[in-house]
Amino acid sequence: MSIKLSGLIAATHTPFQADGQLNLAVVARQAEHLLANGVRTVFIGGTTGESHSLAVEERLALAQRWSKVAQGSELRVVVHVGSNSLTDARTLAAQAQSLGVAAIAAFSPSYFKPKDVATLVACCAEIAGAAPALPFYFYDIPSMTGVQLSMPAFLELATKSVPTLAGIKFTNPDLMAYQQCLHAQSHRFDIPWGSDETLLGALALGASGAVGSTYNFAAPIYHRVLAAFAQGDLAKARAEQYRSVELVELLAGFGFMGAAKTVMSFLGVDVGPARLPHSNLTAEQVVELKSSLERLGYFDWIRA
Amino acid sequence: MSIKLSGLIAATHTPFQADGQLNLAVVARQAEHLLANGVRTVFIGGTTGESHSLAVEERLALAQRWSKVAQGSELRVVVHVGSNSLTDARTLAAQAQSLGVAAIAAFSPSYFKPKDVATLVACCAEIAGAAPALPFYFYDIPSMTGVQLSMPAFLELATKSVPTLAGIKFTNPDLMAYQQCLHAQSHRFDIPWGSDETLLGALALGASGAVGSTYNFAAPIYHRVLAAFAQGDLAKARAEQYRSVELVELLAGFGFMGAAKTVMSFLGVDVGPARLPHSNLTAEQVVELKSSLERLGYFDWIRA
Amino acid sequence: MSIKLSGLIAATHTPFQADGQLNLAVVARQAEHLLANGVRTVFIGGTTGESHSLAVEERLALAQRWSKVAQGSELRVVVHVGSNSLTDARTLAAQAQSLGVAAIAAFSPSYFKPKDVATLVACCAEIAGAAPALPFYFYDIPSMTGVQLSMPAFLELATKSVPTLAGIKFTNPDLMAYQQCLHAQSHRFDIPWGSDETLLGALALGASGAVGSTYNFAAPIYHRVLAAFAQGDLAKARAEQYRSVELVELLAGFGFMGAAKTVMSFLGVDVGPARLPHSNLTAEQVVELKSSLERLGYFDWIRA
Amino acid sequence: MSIKLSGLIAATHTPFQADGQLNLAVVARQAEHLLANGVRTVFIGGTTGESHSLAVEERLALAQRWSKVAQGSELRVVVHVGSNSLTDARTLAAQAQSLGVAAIAAFSPSYFKPKDVATLVACCAEIAGAAPALPFYFYDIPSMTGVQLSMPAFLELATKSVPTLAGIKFTNPDLMAYQQCLHAQSHRFDIPWGSDETLLGALALGASGAVGSTYNFAAPIYHRVLAAFAQGDLAKARAEQYRSVELVELLAGFGFMGAAKTVMSFLGVDVGPARLPHSNLTAEQVVELKSSLERLGYFDWIRA
Repeated sequence: MSIKLSGLIAATHTPFQADGQLNLAVVARQAEHLLANGVRTVFIGGTTGESHSLAVEERLALAQRWSKVAQGSELRVVVHVGSNSLTDARTLAAQAQSLGVAAIAAFSPSYFKPKDVATLVACCAEIAGAAPALPFYFYDIPSMTGVQLSMPAFLELATKSVPTLAGIKFTNPDLMAYQQCLHAQSHRFDIPWGSDETLLGALALGASGAVGSTYNFAAPIYHRVLAAFAQGDLAKARAEQYRSVELVELLAGFGFMGAAKTVMSFLGVDVGPARLPHSNLTAEQVVELKSSLERLGYFDWIRA
Repeated sequence: MSIKLSGLIAATHTPFQADGQLNLAVVARQAEHLLANGVRTVFIGGTTGESHSLAVEERLALAQRWSKVAQGSELRVVVHVGSNSLTDARTLAAQAQSLGVAAIAAFSPSYFKPKDVATLVACCAEIAGAAPALPFYFYDIPSMTGVQLSMPAFLELATKSVPTLAGIKFTNPDLMAYQQCLHAQSHRFDIPWGSDETLLGALALGASGAVGSTYNFAAPIYHRVLAAFAQGDLAKARAEQYRSVELVELLAGFGFMGAAKTVMSFLGVDVGPARLPHSNLTAEQVVELKSSLERLGYFDWIRA
Repeated sequence: MSIKLSGLIAATHTPFQADGQLNLAVVARQAEHLLANGVRTVFIGGTTGESHSLAVEERLALAQRWSKVAQGSELRVVVHVGSNSLTDARTLAAQAQSLGVAAIAAFSPSYFKPKDVATLVACCAEIAGAAPALPFYFYDIPSMTGVQLSMPAFLELATKSVPTLAGIKFTNPDLMAYQQCLHAQSHRFDIPWGSDETLLGALALGASGAVGSTYNFAAPIYHRVLAAFAQGDLAKARAEQYRSVELVELLAGFGFMGAAKTVMSFLGVDVGPARLPHSNLTAEQVVELKSSLERLGYFDWIRA
Repeated sequence: MSIKLSGLIAATHTPFQADGQLNLAVVARQAEHLLANGVRTVFIGGTTGESHSLAVEERLALAQRWSKVAQGSELRVVVHVGSNSLTDARTLAAQAQSLGVAAIAAFSPSYFKPKDVATLVACCAEIAGAAPALPFYFYDIPSMTGVQLSMPAFLELATKSVPTLAGIKFTNPDLMAYQQCLHAQSHRFDIPWGSDETLLGALALGASGAVGSTYNFAAPIYHRVLAAFAQGDLAKARAEQYRSVELVELLAGFGFMGAAKTVMSFLGVDVGPARLPHSNLTAEQVVELKSSLERLGYFDWIRA
């Protein structure tokens, strides 16, 4: 199914209250912030959205809210519906279709792992079949799922049994497979890149869109990467890309998820803490993170 | 909390209809079959129970049914409540307590992985806190979760923050850690062994109970292992244990989960097919499995 | 080829001088110490012997010395000849045969990994072919080599092309595969167990010999495990086995190899430091290790 | 130490006779072929050179021959001296210095793995110390060694204790770490890229040199990648890079090493078979490979 996730797509955080309860009131603020930063597509309920730490009812409520908030705006919503339970994934997919969002995506079940590409395709067919009017993206992220199957082989096989197949959200460092997916069936598929800190490498190989978590709080950096790359100014593109590397390195030192949610609060978008098994920053660490970001120059970098 | 899972505990299959719908009518038949085979404790909704492939509502309904079926019988029910979502795990734990079952168990979240033992303990404390009247078992199964943390360290730390901690369902080949868990705090914890095909090795090291899937359909073999071991007849114990090895090897060749559920149907307990991402046997494979089991002697082995 | 590695086989350390040079003068002292502790077979140049950190000339000199020292004594020598270079392995195997040792063993190449069992068998055939008069053991140790191939399948295939195949040194926690190897071809093969801290579990399943590093400095503990097991006194066997667990745990905390070589020096057998990439204990750590061993009771445990 | 491995560096095959014996007569032919294809630097005795399958004497003889062949020509020789045995690595390093080659490189010991960056640096210091007049490259290739340590941390620490440190041969898909290494200490280090099939991605991020095996038999393709990239013609660069992807995919299907050596023979450079544990093509497969390469267009692609 034809759709193109071009430019920057923010994989949004799921907002919680201090006690860990879902805090849907923040969604409108997230949307406003992203639009103000030139991000026009959101990927909700994915890894950054802590999908596996949510109850299905919470995921349904989250999708409904984003859909409502996006109505009448420029914002396009992609709903991640992947789950270990295909029953749950179908429930989420059916709702996504009823909400009329732009597309759905799903990663592989990861406790029980599909034994081969055909089984993975069968899982995707079952999910996609619950939303036959929506483009479907497979979300490949072997570092988290432990499922390492050939994506070129997946595209070949899934073409037959997943009629709504739009492409792959590619969060996998394998740039050979990435090229094969881009070239598959005469460039038929949309393969947004899923590793923010290496975007420039993927752009050179042909990426035109990117889904990631740092686009929530550092989009200006990446817009300059995209612009400089488009103008053939590689020195500038590399310098901006390296800022992203420094930022990711800094956050990783504090525990990435908790640190990233804390950064959102620095920007006035209070998405709250992360849920277990993620950890959160102590009060001291929050202060330390802020001053480290200042020293790095981050708050200047993200001025448009 | 004091409880002992002695002897054989069957990790039961979740029964489905041919179309994959939950088929709770079969639970009574499963219970009857197990009691007839001398198995008096069930571990429901675990790995064998395909927990990650179930919706929460299905898990709640399953626990309710087993609780009802067990009422007034000798059958003791342990409910596995583990989930990637601690919210869901708490829902399941609270229900288990309201049903008055014997104990709960939970494995680690496995998409987002606890970064250290303290974080795993925090997860367990959150789950166990929703069922403060029930003994809590951690279910260690690193081959599936990818979470490889020190179980002796876990016991030490969890003692403080999980007051209901009863022990560990140990599905981990590390027999050094197993001994350390058995010896921890003057043999305070119950550490049932979770690898059917190597039970005799664990018995020698001090195991007194075992939770597993083949106890659903091959309990007589293991009862003879236990009896021979108790009598010091190691030759006999080894011979029976090796039958278990041959059985597991045979089933693994067909895809273990699908094959095991098929064996149940051969015994008149139709638990139906496995759900994706597990695969099921073709009609030809079912015939082949039956004749292979006959050649092996399986149907003779399981006569009491 | 018929040979039986019964009882305890010490995987000996390679002795170095303080500056890391080979120190063959210590070999006689090692032999004397082992014989005094009831160990009558040595496995030289294996993992404990730091084979991969030695030059081929050093391995040749080491084998020659052990062979000479063993002459006229009760000591039986098994030479490990495995190498990433099959050329080197053949050189070592041919020398072993010329020395008239009891057997050779070899692990898999591990930088380039055999892609399947047939390729591993081809490697073993090439090595064993250089010592056609000596029994050949494959040394399975997937935690170090990263080569995880089916050992039952290996035995089946290697029977045809490795006429001198005697068995497997099994340093692999997979007790199902262990049973299959013991039972293969009517118990034809010798499968010594390679994990000291779990020996009792293997004994229950049928092990009759064990190759390991702690037999260098804690043989009395294991002799009591063996004796108690033979007499059916499992309580005693478990208590002694648990001492081994506590000892291994203690040494591991200091870096196992460096700590183990230090323990040898405490016993008057100065095998020197370990070579890089292993680390060695600081002077403070040596003192701390000694007092920790005293507190544990180790020096009492190893009195015959 | 200042040196720059710019452009394409061929990681050369080690030539064998049909029976697996070293065949040094072919080295001159390899050199001639590479120079004719615009490749002016060779990296000998590395992964492509099957270093781990060679005896030290063979590695010494190989280095000597390449050094002699290169004399008086434009060819620059980098000798890989890495080994599991640091003793052997030092022997090879000392010879390299006496031969007056351009630089040495070494990968990590991989059977015994350095436990941390400091230990890896200690290993490199020991090796580099045997050739104090030669620039030293660490060769990072975690997919083969299983050693996954932070390369930015390595550069920081090694600066102090490896005075000849020139950089890293980076055969690691982690493009974030790659950027960090390029930027380290004000772009002080030379970090040639080690994955031929993804070169374009690395070029965008700042790579200026590349070491790889396909530069032996497909240099013209990559020269066009480099030229098109330099001219800002990304469409052309991608198209040429994708030819490399198709070529690698085709060879991998036959077993990469054996297939690559066979391709050399098609070009009139008979480097013979690969040694075990690599496998080689059957006669039928050789024919099939040739016709597959023809269908792909390979023989046209490599016309200058």
